[in-house]
Amino acid sequence: MSTFLLPSTLMASLLAATPQPSPASAPTAAQLQVAERLVGPALSEGHAWTRLAEITDGIGPRLSGSEGAEAAVQWALRSFKADGVKAWTEPVKVPRWVRGEERAELLSSERFRGRPLTVMALGGSGATPVEGVTGEVVEVFSLEELATLGERVKGRIVLFNHTMEKPEDYGRFASLRSRGPALAAKAGAVATLVRSLATASLNTPHTGATRFEDGIAPIPAASVTVEDAELLHRLLAGGGPVRVKLVLGCKELPEADSFNVVAEVKGREKPEEIILLGAHLDSWDVGTGAHDDGAGVVMVMEAARLLAKQKPAPRRTVRVVLFMNEENGLRGAKAYAEAHAAELPRHVAALEMDAGGGKPLGVSLRAGEGAAELVRPWLSPLVGVGSGNLLAQEAGGADLTPLLPARVPFFGVRQDGTHYFDVHHTHADTLDKVEPEALAKSTAAVAWMAYVMAEMPGVLPRPPAPPAPAAPAAGPVKSSGH
Amino acid sequence: MSTFLLPSTLMASLLAATPQPSPASAPTAAQLQVAERLVGPALSEGHAWTRLAEITDGIGPRLSGSEGAEAAVQWALRSFKADGVKAWTEPVKVPRWVRGEERAELLSSERFRGRPLTVMALGGSGATPVEGVTGEVVEVFSLEELATLGERVKGRIVLFNHTMEKPEDYGRFASLRSRGPALAAKAGAVATLVRSLATASLNTPHTGATRFEDGIAPIPAASVTVEDAELLHRLLAGGGPVRVKLVLGCKELPEADSFNVVAEVKGREKPEEIILLGAHLDSWDVGTGAHDDGAGVVMVMEAARLLAKQKPAPRRTVRVVLFMNEENGLRGAKAYAEAHAAELPRHVAALEMDAGGGKPLGVSLRAGEGAAELVRPWLSPLVGVGSGNLLAQEAGGADLTPLLPARVPFFGVRQDGTHYFDVHHTHADTLDKVEPEALAKSTAAVAWMAYVMAEMPGVLPRPPAPPAPAAPAAGPVKSSGH
Repeated sequence: MSTFLLPSTLMASLLAATPQPSPASAPTAAQLQVAERLVGPALSEGHAWTRLAEITDGIGPRLSGSEGAEAAVQWALRSFKADGVKAWTEPVKVPRWVRGEERAELLSSERFRGRPLTVMALGGSGATPVEGVTGEVVEVFSLEELATLGERVKGRIVLFNHTMEKPEDYGRFASLRSRGPALAAKAGAVATLVRSLATASLNTPHTGATRFEDGIAPIPAASVTVEDAELLHRLLAGGGPVRVKLVLGCKELPEADSFNVVAEVKGREKPEEIILLGAHLDSWDVGTGAHDDGAGVVMVMEAARLLAKQKPAPRRTVRVVLFMNEENGLRGAKAYAEAHAAELPRHVAALEMDAGGGKPLGVSLRAGEGAAELVRPWLSPLVGVGSGNLLAQEAGGADLTPLLPARVPFFGVRQDGTHYFDVHHTHADTLDKVEPEALAKSTAAVAWMAYVMAEMPGVLPRPPAPPAPAAPAAGPVKSSGH
Repeated sequence: MSTFLLPSTLMASLLAATPQPSPASAPTAAQLQVAERLVGPALSEGHAWTRLAEITDGIGPRLSGSEGAEAAVQWALRSFKADGVKAWTEPVKVPRWVRGEERAELLSSERFRGRPLTVMALGGSGATPVEGVTGEVVEVFSLEELATLGERVKGRIVLFNHTMEKPEDYGRFASLRSRGPALAAKAGAVATLVRSLATASLNTPHTGATRFEDGIAPIPAASVTVEDAELLHRLLAGGGPVRVKLVLGCKELPEADSFNVVAEVKGREKPEEIILLGAHLDSWDVGTGAHDDGAGVVMVMEAARLLAKQKPAPRRTVRVVLFMNEENGLRGAKAYAEAHAAELPRHVAALEMDAGGGKPLGVSLRAGEGAAELVRPWLSPLVGVGSGNLLAQEAGGADLTPLLPARVPFFGVRQDGTHYFDVHHTHADTLDKVEPEALAKSTAAVAWMAYVMAEMPGVLPRPPAPPAPAAPAAGPVKSSGH
């Protein structure tokens, strides 16, 4: 209702650039028949599962800059080709951090005999000298508590402890891992141990990215298992000093050339309007990235394969982007947003599958007012896979954050993540942890929702612009549940 | 009803040596008051838990022959003294096997890129050459299947796979670990991988004893995680050879001097009649043996502490035996049975707590006919801890097997073992896995049942003699659930 009028030429070009929403409408009988040809094969053919075996058992871990990551790029190109989906690579310069020797030990005291601690370097961690670093442990439960310690951090090993119990706690505590080590370094700590961000543990360390801003020299930063964090806590609570020796041989190598893999199913009527289906091709260097994010990769690939078979093609273009470097830099996401800046106003919806291979629970949206009403009439084909309801007004994914300033509407398929953080970023994130039926159901939901976004008569209203500081803060910290 | 008459002198001496059962009777009011003074403190004082923290956090792993095992012997002596319970050591010669470097890798093929496998040497394993041993993997699911392979085992690495899912499966599959490697060695295998005997896994290897009989040179024998066993299975099922390299640096050192720790609360009326309460002081060299068998140790120690406070003392003697070397040799159990052979007819009941720190589910017996009727009237004080019922006619423990030929009646407190094999013989068998309330309840049940056996007017009828071959077969294989 603003009375301010834009010059009519500018107004016209903006309207041309950014598609406008239309009134709600239900799918036609022909459109509903497409649901059978998407949901049916996704549930029955097991194609996503076969692909997941290829990328996990066949290729293995895929940390940015590694041979595995490069193998995954080539595999993705080959696979899209086999599926009849046009695909290409887009260049991304990635950090190349490599793990080395890693071990720690509790040094003996009068109260305990010492013993090995189970640690795993965090991505981005600095190395210790070859002989290791030794220090007295000081424990904090928050970044705020660290700030209150002042001089007591100097020369110490900071233990970031916490009380994560359920998946929803990840968001509360992830900054201990991503930002804690840098803050401890600033305060004079010689090393840090971060309690693994885990919902279950059999002495299982969880890696993940930590970030040292420019000007802060990385210090050794390792995750420690829940068990060993609790041991250190009990020993500290028992009084007297607790000393630990930590050896980390990780290295930051020169940046490497890598790629996003992009694939498209061209729209029949509005090929310039783009539905982005994202997932990330890289993984951590432990385990085989089955849930994180092999599952997401094969779901969006399968959606493209099934959509490419539809005649006629959907109204708009469906573009799959397999991002590189989600885990430790988001370079792929940033490169995509830069390379495609001019197109972003015509990105009419974007999804990222990056919450594992759990069964679908519902559809989510992050869009302007009225979006839910547009989408709701199209959800009936998902009732059978347990996903026919609209959940909270929130959707996204770390690789989508660079799209926020362009006000791209996000949609998502919410999944059961009960056991996601049991294996997230661990040696245990392997194919056996993904349930084939759950993967197939989520794949079906993604395929249908991609079609819905590509085929609906109108597009989703765009969400309001995000608050200014939120836009560029696309660091390696994943949002809760990712 | 035999008409055969023994010479009356021999008959008299046998009757004197082996106490005879009496008719059933209920406890008196005074005896029931003792229940309050045993069950009450066991539930409220947390003394067993404190002791469990000492032996796990304070001492750590306790493999036979290690410094930890020796520290545990000294700790037990000190602790009994502090509790006012007379204690001493009895010598046991123990094997001394030590873990070294251990790693394995899947070698690349056209179908997969290779990668590390997570392995852990089995106790008793042979070493590989420093550079490791490489071989093609052949998979079997049973010892019978191995026997059918004949020449196909020569020069291969045998993968013993299985389908363990629940605690009850342990008994079915444990022989793959304990006997499989020796049988594979006989058949010409160069090494073996045994799928971990686990009810949960986060890429968690489980160790345990394997046995090479005299004349069979030990070959390298490692457990492999459930995840990696399933990976190998999938790759083998996919066709084509799967080659693995295994490096194990373990060693068998000369035997060492060690000890059982024995403690006694003397009986007031029949001090020569002995109720044996057993547990084992040794553990594996990974984790801190919290469930296996720190929990058992502190339960029987706490029973002795509480019984020692009772005035008057119970009718019979309660003897605690903390056995050394249950895990990889049963040398403590054998040494005890030999040193106390003359006393075994006067062992009127024996229990071993070696199934973790779970909550009590009931009382079990392995005795002659009529035993249940004698015990049942004494169970009411355990109703409140969920253990007031008599379960199956089976009780025992690996360290009690040498007492079988002497027909010693066994009693037990059955415990919830749902999660026992999640952590059994792993790095994750640590204090945090034991639930304080469950430990306290099981401790209460042990203390009361020890009193019952020591105080009942009569003793349990002795069970029939075991079948001849079962008696000496006291190898390191634990029975199901232990």
